[in-house]
Amino acid sequence: MSKIFVDACFGKDTPYTPVWMMRQAGRYLPEYMAVRKEAGNFLNLCHNPEKACEVTIQPIDIVGVDAAILFSDILVIPNEMGMELKFVTGEGPLFPSPIKDEADLDALIGGAKAADKLTYVYDTIKLLKEQLPKDKALIGFTGAPWTLATYMIEGEGTKTYNICKKMIYSNPDLLHKILRKVTDVVKLYMENQIKAGADVVQIFDSWAAAIEPGLYDEFSWKYMVEIAEYIKEKYPHIPVIMFPKGIPAFLDKVYGNFDVFGVDWGTPMALAKEKLGDKYVLQGNMEPCRLYSKEETTKCVEAIQEVMGSKRHIFNLGHGILPDVPVEHAKHFVSECQRVSKN
Amino acid sequence: MSKIFVDACFGKDTPYTPVWMMRQAGRYLPEYMAVRKEAGNFLNLCHNPEKACEVTIQPIDIVGVDAAILFSDILVIPNEMGMELKFVTGEGPLFPSPIKDEADLDALIGGAKAADKLTYVYDTIKLLKEQLPKDKALIGFTGAPWTLATYMIEGEGTKTYNICKKMIYSNPDLLHKILRKVTDVVKLYMENQIKAGADVVQIFDSWAAAIEPGLYDEFSWKYMVEIAEYIKEKYPHIPVIMFPKGIPAFLDKVYGNFDVFGVDWGTPMALAKEKLGDKYVLQGNMEPCRLYSKEETTKCVEAIQEVMGSKRHIFNLGHGILPDVPVEHAKHFVSECQRVSKN
Repeated sequence: MSKIFVDACFGKDTPYTPVWMMRQAGRYLPEYMAVRKEAGNFLNLCHNPEKACEVTIQPIDIVGVDAAILFSDILVIPNEMGMELKFVTGEGPLFPSPIKDEADLDALIGGAKAADKLTYVYDTIKLLKEQLPKDKALIGFTGAPWTLATYMIEGEGTKTYNICKKMIYSNPDLLHKILRKVTDVVKLYMENQIKAGADVVQIFDSWAAAIEPGLYDEFSWKYMVEIAEYIKEKYPHIPVIMFPKGIPAFLDKVYGNFDVFGVDWGTPMALAKEKLGDKYVLQGNMEPCRLYSKEETTKCVEAIQEVMGSKRHIFNLGHGILPDVPVEHAKHFVSECQRVSKN
Repeated sequence: MSKIFVDACFGKDTPYTPVWMMRQAGRYLPEYMAVRKEAGNFLNLCHNPEKACEVTIQPIDIVGVDAAILFSDILVIPNEMGMELKFVTGEGPLFPSPIKDEADLDALIGGAKAADKLTYVYDTIKLLKEQLPKDKALIGFTGAPWTLATYMIEGEGTKTYNICKKMIYSNPDLLHKILRKVTDVVKLYMENQIKAGADVVQIFDSWAAAIEPGLYDEFSWKYMVEIAEYIKEKYPHIPVIMFPKGIPAFLDKVYGNFDVFGVDWGTPMALAKEKLGDKYVLQGNMEPCRLYSKEETTKCVEAIQEVMGSKRHIFNLGHGILPDVPVEHAKHFVSECQRVSKN
């Protein structure tokens, strides 16, 4: 059965423009909160294929999106490379022993050995393949090596990224070694997700904007492209989506073999279309806070449709949905996207 | 005596391109830390004209910059409008009773009554006029109404700005009323700073990037322009610098009567020059973390000089200097800017 979402990723004509939302399996859904409570905590939920599968499917059933995104977290990767990971309530993720030097890096598990430890992710995907409606696509994902490295080096979320940046400017060799080791794991992690049944993969570079424009390629983009091209060479039928958040200043520098470019809400859709629309299908990009108002949601969906015209486009938010958005508004967004784009 | 910094703001030829650094009076200077310790805490230091004057001058003497920026904080404005303000060590600023509705806003002091309460700022400027070398310019400043409003509404620093954004999309009238009241105070605050002796004023919109591109003018820029134009009309000899951080995606939308556009490090200088260089003098924009390495500092200063060619430019960082930068490196940055730009 052909999946509208996969077709759209390849720029094929579809009956309407498909839609999904970043963080669509999340805290705004009471059904998600119930499962999470049963699981005990966030990381337990990631480790539990049955429950992770259940919350992955929820937004398909409840909100009506056209694709499901695997419920997991990007930080399971460094975690399985051997870094202890804690989720402190209200504080976000914490690696109590961040990478300080080459010895710390060498102590981590690399390559297939690390990728093969992420069995709970692959098991979740296998369950999803059985349970997901056949016309819906399953999106696997990873964090970009740079975004993963920021957590591995800073140990926690940061406003200034100054430990990572000190490394960029005073010890770039160590940073490249970290990025190399992470990239090698991520390539196999993506491949294993595809082997388990992912129909599409997305690479999230959530902290792209922390690198100055002239160095973005060297410290992030080229590693993302390496992963994308590894996948495209072996699995050309699997669409690859790149989502580097916050690089509107240099879209003309975007290159590489992948299918879809994810546009964040800070990048005007018209600008992305002008710079990248011929080369890549574009995904995005409603400002997630518009979901607080149905009226403002409709206005924005119509404005995006006006720019994209049901061609080479996938509707999405320009960043993750927030926990306090009413479910009714999320449904409204999804149905409006489908309504305005009907051919 | 003519001041090279003021001349440069008006695009006149100068013997070299002047330089200063955002947050140059700050924690990276041991001399600053000593005065701050005496003062007891950050807010006490803002309230003490003698000590605020002393730390304002320090970077002129120690680091060799061409302009001094008044030592103060943007949040003294809402504080004197009647909002209790706390600086919690390691946590940042906190307004325990943020604005929730129109009644909260109405309870705040507005207009001249609020602006006239900021006497300690004006007293600091008067002292500075006596003590600052006559060839150095004194920069006064304010936060943009939007940036001030984010703190007044959220109560503290935020990653998501979701309370403000909920207001943008579901109660824009209240947000505009807040912005109006703040703008009216800021206009007089800027005017009082000029009357006390400020040679230049800068408007910082640190959280510009929190607003989606299509709404930036409505909720921030137009208020900044109103302040700038109020000043330019009454004090045409006073240069006005605008610093909206993080708007590279829509530089072509920048308008208004002011003199200098501050370029943040995320915006390539060549892009800013292409879009705005004919209309405004440009200030910026080294990534502050380059200060961790002298070599990387020199490389960046030379690259910026290559783009700007000693014309219509003021050197600066693209954001504030970080506390753990060695003073020696800050001096190196300043002398390199002066060296490479000598005519």
